[in-house]
Amino acid sequence: MTTLLLKNVRPMAGEIRDVTIVDGLFADGPAPEGAAEIDGGGAILIPGLVEAHTHLDKSLLGLPWYRNEVGARLIDKITNERENKERLGIEPARQSERQAIQSVAKGSTHIRSHVDVDTHHGLKGIEGVMATRDRLKDLVTIELVAFPQSGMMIRPGTAELMDQAMALGCEVVGGLDPCGIDRDPKGHLDTIFGLAERYGRPVDIHLHERDALGAFSMELIIERTEALGMQGHVTVSHAFCLGQTDRTVAAGLTEALARAGVHIVTTAPAAVPVPAVRELISAGVAVGAGSDGIRDTWGPFGNADMLERAMFIALKNNFRRDDEVEMALSVCTTGGAAVMELEGYGLGTGDKADAVLIEGETIAEAVANRAPRRLVLKGGRVVAENGVCVVEAP
Amino acid sequence: MTTLLLKNVRPMAGEIRDVTIVDGLFADGPAPEGAAEIDGGGAILIPGLVEAHTHLDKSLLGLPWYRNEVGARLIDKITNERENKERLGIEPARQSERQAIQSVAKGSTHIRSHVDVDTHHGLKGIEGVMATRDRLKDLVTIELVAFPQSGMMIRPGTAELMDQAMALGCEVVGGLDPCGIDRDPKGHLDTIFGLAERYGRPVDIHLHERDALGAFSMELIIERTEALGMQGHVTVSHAFCLGQTDRTVAAGLTEALARAGVHIVTTAPAAVPVPAVRELISAGVAVGAGSDGIRDTWGPFGNADMLERAMFIALKNNFRRDDEVEMALSVCTTGGAAVMELEGYGLGTGDKADAVLIEGETIAEAVANRAPRRLVLKGGRVVAENGVCVVEAP
Ligand SMILES: [Zn+2]
Ligand SMILES: [Zn+2]
Repeated sequence: MTTLLLKNVRPMAGEIRDVTIVDGLFADGPAPEGAAEIDGGGAILIPGLVEAHTHLDKSLLGLPWYRNEVGARLIDKITNERENKERLGIEPARQSERQAIQSVAKGSTHIRSHVDVDTHHGLKGIEGVMATRDRLKDLVTIELVAFPQSGMMIRPGTAELMDQAMALGCEVVGGLDPCGIDRDPKGHLDTIFGLAERYGRPVDIHLHERDALGAFSMELIIERTEALGMQGHVTVSHAFCLGQTDRTVAAGLTEALARAGVHIVTTAPAAVPVPAVRELISAGVAVGAGSDGIRDTWGPFGNADMLERAMFIALKNNFRRDDEVEMALSVCTTGGAAVMELEGYGLGTGDKADAVLIEGETIAEAVANRAPRRLVLKGGRVVAENGVCVVEAP
Repeated sequence: MTTLLLKNVRPMAGEIRDVTIVDGLFADGPAPEGAAEIDGGGAILIPGLVEAHTHLDKSLLGLPWYRNEVGARLIDKITNERENKERLGIEPARQSERQAIQSVAKGSTHIRSHVDVDTHHGLKGIEGVMATRDRLKDLVTIELVAFPQSGMMIRPGTAELMDQAMALGCEVVGGLDPCGIDRDPKGHLDTIFGLAERYGRPVDIHLHERDALGAFSMELIIERTEALGMQGHVTVSHAFCLGQTDRTVAAGLTEALARAGVHIVTTAPAAVPVPAVRELISAGVAVGAGSDGIRDTWGPFGNADMLERAMFIALKNNFRRDDEVEMALSVCTTGGAAVMELEGYGLGTGDKADAVLIEGETIAEAVANRAPRRLVLKGGRVVAENGVCVVEAP
């Protein structure tokens, strides 16, 4: 049942009207005879929220409380997680299903998940999240990024596993701090981009490196994007180096990103410098957003709510006006859709009926209130109502 | 009825036990014959949350959505608010009551509210919030800071109104950016501290000034605190200058604050540099926290939840470990209590039974989940249950 008359909704907080969905797509004209009807009660209709950066294989959702006593360095968190995953019961298939179902309840219709690939666990994470991806395919689109979380050049055997992960059907090649973690930026990036070429897949690289170091890695990424003609298919996640205090360098990088069609994904963390959303969008760079890890061994926070992420983006960028909060939300919808290269995304005629009904007079009010989502549709099918997914978590 | 046997609670997430309250105070030994009983169901008992910095007279809670189109500068927001307050129906008595009741529902037992004093509205804000302070006195302790939001030296007549506000019974003398807004740091601070001396009241100054400018104003505040023997009775709110990149200067200021017994209050905003909570506490500076404005003409966010504020503090300070999140919560309890100079605050025998039951295995889980507060007590009296205040908002 993916033909539907959605009555009394306000697309993008505009005029109230009825919306017709036929065979899972937004359609023009009246609904076919006998189509099911749902009353939207005047709520705002937006395209499905896009969780463009998370880690479905890491979450502790539904497990006993994890008392976090982990050290402060990035490498402490990486090692702690790798070595305790099994003991803590972080079973990738189950945990990814739990988190994905919570995402659906909160209105996400698309998820890009980085999934750990390392010589300790091999492809177990990939296989687990793939099982969830397939099991929930009618509820949410899940894309896997093969992610060398523990490093690749510094851990022999990892590059081969990355290759196997891509062969198994991962949608994206991941990477991580070519200098800071992997100690060999040329080796790291040549391997990553080599895999991307071989499998015809996009790239999404975690880049935590700051200031000049991050800028250097970013330049190497841009050079490879242009050399391989991969414009539009490369994403840099976090990109803290764009938040550096030298605004001239940041502006130069922003221009180069726009020219090379490299996307940025941000989680808008409060604690560190981050890319300025308005400046990137003005320059023509697509900016998506994600929750990153949700209640995992890295930290206790996160709830998979991309409306809350829009609030975090607004708070971090000091967005207060209604039009600014709308820009923050657009990062969590159309911005993420550009990063994931989604086709047929939107509320136009012929677009896929992946959409959410949110409560508020304006979009800013909906973001500020973050009431339970009234309705979530995937391909015109109801997948969540009043904040509850139609499928129960395991 | 302020004598109570509170069964099955875990004070500060420790061992489960029964807690006796007699005549509104935590007591030793068994409950008196016939005392009422409440089952805490194993929840964590903490002392009441302290909202140490808000603006009860500004909130738009319960009013139609305000479409924010205000300019980016501080002065734009100040002017916009002053000139539109009446048109928007921001009636201080009603709006402060709405916000205070929401605070109680979220577990705050004490509120320090800055309240605007200016030549446009005179003392209307002060009178309105005082009415709420008195009306809700059995539910929550409200303290008023006479606050020259529009400037004092730059708006003749304001200093006289500040004097009248103190004579009327405001508990604290407020101030605001002696350089940035008031253009006369010596004049501003001499007036503020003069009022504090005359009325024997503490001082709480909004200081948004950055870097060297903020450091200069902070030095002037510290000098006056020491000269007047006001150690322990002066607070600097925001104190963004402590977040400056020159860590040597920040460390020097921190030492001077500790020596002078000057407190810091933070809202942990994501967008700007802020004082480092751990460093301040280590140096012996009391650090409290507040929501600042809640859904007002300055911005759409905020919900009066001090558990959420603890999360914001954790996120801003990159606190992830359980002990770190506990520190973030302590800023919202004992830290705020030190700022407000509360007597009998805590869970010890003889302390006032102002307390909250929060849900979680550990304090960090309670902060991460932020479930509706199971129970809020003020002087041993139940003032909120399951997230709902016993009094309805107007
Ligand atoms: Zn990540
Ligand atoms: Zn304030």
